[in-house]
Formats: sequence, C-alpha cells, structure tokens
Amino acid sequence: MPTPETPIRSYEAVLQAIEADLKDGRIKVGDRLPGERALALMHGISRASVRDAIRILDVMGVVRTAVGSGPSAGAVVIANPSAGLGSTLRLHMATSHFPVADIVQTRIMIESWAAREAAGADHDAGKLAHLHELLAAMDSNVLGREAFHSLDAEFHVLLSSLAGNAVVTAMMESLRFAVQGYVSDSIDSDDMWEGIVPVLRTQHGEIMAAVLAHDGDGAATALSNHIVWFHSQTRQLP
Amino acid sequence: MPTPETPIRSYEAVLQAIEADLKDGRIKVGDRLPGERALALMHGISRASVRDAIRILDVMGVVRTAVGSGPSAGAVVIANPSAGLGSTLRLHMATSHFPVADIVQTRIMIESWAAREAAGADHDAGKLAHLHELLAAMDSNVLGREAFHSLDAEFHVLLSSLAGNAVVTAMMESLRFAVQGYVSDSIDSDDMWEGIVPVLRTQHGEIMAAVLAHDGDGAATALSNHIVWFHSQTRQLP
Repeated sequence: MPTPETPIRSYEAVLQAIEADLKDGRIKVGDRLPGERALALMHGISRASVRDAIRILDVMGVVRTAVGSGPSAGAVVIANPSAGLGSTLRLHMATSHFPVADIVQTRIMIESWAAREAAGADHDAGKLAHLHELLAAMDSNVLGREAFHSLDAEFHVLLSSLAGNAVVTAMMESLRFAVQGYVSDSIDSDDMWEGIVPVLRTQHGEIMAAVLAHDGDGAATALSNHIVWFHSQTRQLP
Repeated sequence: MPTPETPIRSYEAVLQAIEADLKDGRIKVGDRLPGERALALMHGISRASVRDAIRILDVMGVVRTAVGSGPSAGAVVIANPSAGLGSTLRLHMATSHFPVADIVQTRIMIESWAAREAAGADHDAGKLAHLHELLAAMDSNVLGREAFHSLDAEFHVLLSSLAGNAVVTAMMESLRFAVQGYVSDSIDSDDMWEGIVPVLRTQHGEIMAAVLAHDGDGAATALSNHIVWFHSQTRQLP
C-alpha cells in the first residue's frame, strides 16, 4: 500500500496492473504481454520503466522474455513459481538472515509432513523413476561431494512433491539452495565426508522404502531422523 | 547455472556478484552499495543494466533505494526477507497456480506447528500487546469485512512469529495476501459473514488463551479447527 513515506514507483504500477490482470483472468499463462510501447502508453509511464517491470517479472519467474528479440516482441506469461521464490530466498539466505537451526527446524516440519502425505498418496510413476535414478547416481563412488549435495537436494525436493501440494512444493524449491548451502558448508573435510556419505545412502534408501510401502509413520520418522542425524554429525554453523 | 539455452543476462551478473559479496561478508546489512557508475565499471556492463539489477534487488527486499536521489547515491542493503517473498508469492498466486485446498492444507501444517512452538516459548511482550490490539480491533462491530480480513491475516502471521523461527515467519508473510484473498473470496454475502464473524472472534480468543497458558496441544488443535471450520462453512473455491 503506497504511503507518503513509500511513494509508488512507476514500474510498480505496471507490476500491480499485470497482477490484477492475471488475477481476474484477463491475462493467463501462455499469453503474450503487450509490447513495451503499448504498455508505456497504457500506464502513462516511460518505456524504460516498462522494461524494469518486465525484467522484475522475468527474475520472479512470472514471464519469460526471449533474449535478443526486439522490445516489441512482448514477454510470455509462464508458470514458474519456484524460480522466483528460489532466487529471492537464495538472495536472502546470502544476507545470513536465516539461522541454519531455523532452516533445519523448518525442513523437519515440512519434509516429515510431506513424507507422511507422500506415503499415503498414489505415486506418480515418472517421479518415482526419477527418484530411483537420483538414488542410483548418489551410490556412485566417483561422484564429487558438491555433485552429491546437488542430487541430494533434488531428491528431497522431488520426494516432498509426491505429497501433491503445490504450495509445499514451491516452498521446498525455495529452500533448495539454502539447504544445499548449509549441507555443503557443514562438511569440514573429505575424511569427515567419507564417514557420513554411506549413512546418508542407507537413510535415503529407508525413506524411499517407507514411502513405497505406504508407511506414513515410518517415512516421517525416517526423514526426520535423517535430517537430525546429519545436523548432529557436522559442524554447527550460526 | 547458465547454459547455452539460458544465456546469462548482464543484470544477472550484478545480482550474482552482490549475492556472493553478501554471502562472503564483503557486503552486509546496512552497507551502501557502490554507485551505478562504479558497479557498471566493475562488471563491465552498461549503467542501464546496473539500474535493472538494483531495481530487482529493491523489489526483492534486499536493498532500499531512496526515491529521487541521484544514481550515484548507492542502494542500502536492508534486511527484509518477507517483502520479496511476499510480492513474489502474491504474483504467483495471481497466476492461479496454487489451489485454495493446497493453501488451506499448508496453513494447517505450518500454523498448528507454530502455535505449538509459540505455546512452549517465552513470549515477547511487544508482540503479545500487538496481538491483543488486533483481537480488540476485530471485536468492533463497525469494522468492515475487508478490514477484518486484513487484521485477521496480520493476527495469524504475528502469532506464527511467536514460534521464533525466521524461515517459518517469512513463509507465513509470503502466504499472507494469498490467505487474505481466499478468505475474502470465500464469503458470498453480508448475511453469510454475519453468521461467521462471531465464531471467528471466539476461536481467535481460544487460540490466544491456549498460547498464553503454554498449552501446546490446545493451541495447535484450536488453530487447526479454526482453519478447517472456516473452510467448511464457506464457498469452496477451485
């Protein structure tokens, strides 16, 4: 809500107008927005301000603009909630605003809930196949530590998505880089990692087995224990 | 990660550099970023691209730029995770990507968890006073329906923040407008509202009393029942 202390900026007018158009169904996913010149005329603002608004929507994952196409091409509305959330939360994580303990606590809440729901749900065959691929890739002994952390974070986000809740999936996506970051930073040495990685593999297998067996309690407990165990074994970060 | 299919845009280079500087402590909250010209020289990009990057950081709530100050003034790094998350999620909500049932389910998970934690925690006197003010304001019979919804959403976010988890608070902030939106859209008429509002007041009082009495089970149950009851009484939205 603009007040005298926080005057509305011209690009915010475009953001708000596009938000209202999306909400009321005048614009929908897949539609092309009017070009820069048309939007500038519509809102009585400069083309530079329109360009700012479009780039912000781009970073937020609301529209996609084709690189190299002219300013008249128009941005296409896409459905990509996680992209915007992810980059925002990643930036905020970089400001060290969220203590690792809070991320760990949030993960335990959301992921154990999601594992229980996932165990009770019908399973998407494509997602299950992808989860098995991720587990197989993490079994490789030649995989680097950072590559493991990346696959590990992907496994956790994808597993949570089996719960079938789009808001929870977006929240997990938004935490993905934060999780990968603290996990990576928690490991002091290759020696430490060598001791930890076999246990992570076993725990991932147990979580997956419980979900496949439709064992909600087992899946929630295995997931919670997995997160708590890793955190207890590694360097405590602020 | 830039690939040939998703070429890096010049403003993204600035975003990434600032993210890295924040992460490594070279820039911290309260610091002023270099001016436009300096950043442009540093990253070998145009001043227009620097301006785009700064405006994106502004919308994300990472920096605050003074309106009307010259381009050389430099943006100040602020700590405002919820602003960026809120506007992103609000925009995505507008694309109708999240079904109301998923928002309701997510609220029950997060808010009942937070109420239980809040009941077990030491209470911030300032927040408690604000919560009591919100409850008193919602008792007014002359308050309009939309004003009630706004105070109601604020009450739920603030109550959750008593759990003391910064990630959960940011997530609740990000859901605030989505919650306010579906609650408002669920009410068909003033007659319907007149029947609902006294029950909401009673339920809010019960939740607050359980938290104050450090009754974790009672607070979690009262909160969950409150969300489920409202959803069951009102128009079912897609």
